[in-house]
Parts: sequence; C-alpha cells; structure tokens
Amino acid sequence: MARWQPNAPERLVVAALDLFAERGYESTTVIDIAERAGLTKSTFFRHFPDKREVLFAGGGSMADVLAEGIAAAPDTAAPLEAVAHGLDAVGREVFVPARRAFATKRQTVIAANPELREREALKGIDLTAAMAGALRSRGVSDVASRVAVQLGALVMKIAYERWTGTDEGEEFGDVARQALAEVREAGALSLA
Amino acid sequence: MARWQPNAPERLVVAALDLFAERGYESTTVIDIAERAGLTKSTFFRHFPDKREVLFAGGGSMADVLAEGIAAAPDTAAPLEAVAHGLDAVGREVFVPARRAFATKRQTVIAANPELREREALKGIDLTAAMAGALRSRGVSDVASRVAVQLGALVMKIAYERWTGTDEGEEFGDVARQALAEVREAGALSLA
Repeated sequence: MARWQPNAPERLVVAALDLFAERGYESTTVIDIAERAGLTKSTFFRHFPDKREVLFAGGGSMADVLAEGIAAAPDTAAPLEAVAHGLDAVGREVFVPARRAFATKRQTVIAANPELREREALKGIDLTAAMAGALRSRGVSDVASRVAVQLGALVMKIAYERWTGTDEGEEFGDVARQALAEVREAGALSLA
Repeated sequence: MARWQPNAPERLVVAALDLFAERGYESTTVIDIAERAGLTKSTFFRHFPDKREVLFAGGGSMADVLAEGIAAAPDTAAPLEAVAHGLDAVGREVFVPARRAFATKRQTVIAANPELREREALKGIDLTAAMAGALRSRGVSDVASRVAVQLGALVMKIAYERWTGTDEGEEFGDVARQALAEVREAGALSLA
C-alpha cells in the first residue's frame, strides 16, 4: 500500500499548472504531472479523475463560501448587496493575496484552451446556482434572485479578471466592490 | 455515391427528438435515429458529428438573428432595449409558433440529462458573446454591454422556459417583453 504523501493534492496542482504554462495543456500528461510533483500516477488518480480537473479542484468549497457569505448578510441588504457580502467572503477565504499569482497563471492557461474555457464556464454555472439558492433562502423572489445572480456573477467575473490581471496587489474584496459600483451604474443606465 | 435526401437534417432532428423522448437520450443510438428517419448512418454523419449535436443544430443562426436584431434597434435605444429588439427578431425568425411544440419536447429531453444541460449552457455562452459583440458595435461601453447581456440572457431564458412550458400559444416576442418588464422591475430593486 502506498504511504501517505504530505500535501499531495497541492503539489499536483502546482506541478500541473507549471507544466501547462511551460508546455501547453495538450502536451502535458498525467505521468508528467506526477513526476514533476515527485509522486506516482496512482497517487494522482487518488486525488483527481483526469488532468483537466486539477485546475478545477475546490470549486465546490468556493460555492459554499459564497453561499455562506450571502446567508450572513444583514437582513436589510438588497439582493445584490447580499451577493456582495458573498464576494467579500470569497476574498477573505478563497481569493486571498497569497493565491493571486497562482490564480493569474491559472487564468492564462485556461484562456489558451477552448476545452478549459468550457469547463470554467460550467464551474461558473455551479457558482450561480449556489448564489441563487442562498438568495432564495433569504426569501428573495424567483425573478429578483435570478437578476441579482446574473449581476453578481458578472461582478465576480470582472473582479477576478482584474485581480488576476494586475501586479498591484489589491485585495479581491476591494476589486469586487469597485466592480460592483460600476455594474450598478451601468445597470441603472441599461434599465433606463 | 449516396443520392440526395430531401430534408435529411430536419428528418434526423425530428426522429432523434422523438426517440430521446420515448427511450431516453442514453438508450438511443445514431443507427436508431437514422433508421427512424428512413436514412442511413452515413447520411446522419454527413449532417451531424454525433447524436448530441442533433439537438443543437442552428445555434449559430440564432446568434446571427439576435445580433442582427440588436444592430437594427433605433440608435436611441438603451442597451437592454436594444437586446429586446434582438429578442423580438428571435421571436419572428426562430421561435416561431410552429416551432413551439418541438422546442417544448426538446426542453424536456435536455432537462433530463446532465450532459445535455451542459451543452445547452455552453450554447448560451455563444449567444451572450453574440449579444455582447452586437452591443459593442453600437458603441456601448464594456461594462454596460456586459450588464445588458447578463440581463438580456436572463430575459431570454425566462421567456424560453415560459414559452415552451405552456399550451397557451402566446408568441415568443410577447412572452419576452413580459419577462423583460419583470427583470427591469427586479433589477431596479436589486440595484437599490
């Protein structure tokens, strides 16, 4: 039986991302990733079903953080403001400053590959489902929660693009609040 | 050389949808579909790469109709109003009354299968890209066009659910205008 490998999932994620960035996603195999991480192929498959999923680990926990942040918003918060509380929580617990360099590299790898872009888009759908569920639990009506989710997802996407696209070291929560202000303003014009 | 088969793509689409509804998507093969349509497997593969794509034919032309409708909106139309003109065009040219029974059956088949739901979500991404491009051509700024696209996509989704979900025979354009009014109202509250 294989002995326990400390931090195996993290090491595999880092190795995979480095290899995807160096050689391209298509040209990297699971064996390459395991070797770079100093682990075996069977250790890889204990943690991930395939090389693609290495880049999407933790998606479920982000949905949970988002939903919990929305649930914890003050009762008086309007739907989109409640979503903003969810994004604050994501900034505190997931998109922490130490993760920015990793997230930036990941974003570049994903942008270069259509299959990865599709998978990322589907992850986005899971996140919107989590937001919608959290808003409904707050008693927000169906159409109102769907509107807030669409706008909240856009704020999250813009904030993620900006947070990973600069070297400025701004905190995700601040970038998200700025994006929210712009989306609010554009939304008011768009609804006119 | 195979002789030309009149309406082969349409016959294959109808046969596939009937079989998916009767037996389930998983249990239907390309050979089953071709046989039901009175055509050969090689005719099937001249028109579609696999059984899944039978349900997603014509997605590109819908994106074109949407984009052209947005481009044809009056210069004075706010971004979301321009998207509404795109949805009017979709109602006139794609989601015509004669198509409603088909669309309803298709919707039921897709809802029952996770792989089809993913593919449908990805088609939605193509449609939002078409909307975004059409709005930018109107000179709408980046954030404003993204907001209008998010809300427009939601209007389209709600309208499609309602249009396919009733026997009332309402026109898609009317259902979309009603959904737009609700999204506007909810948006105003959400942005508060």
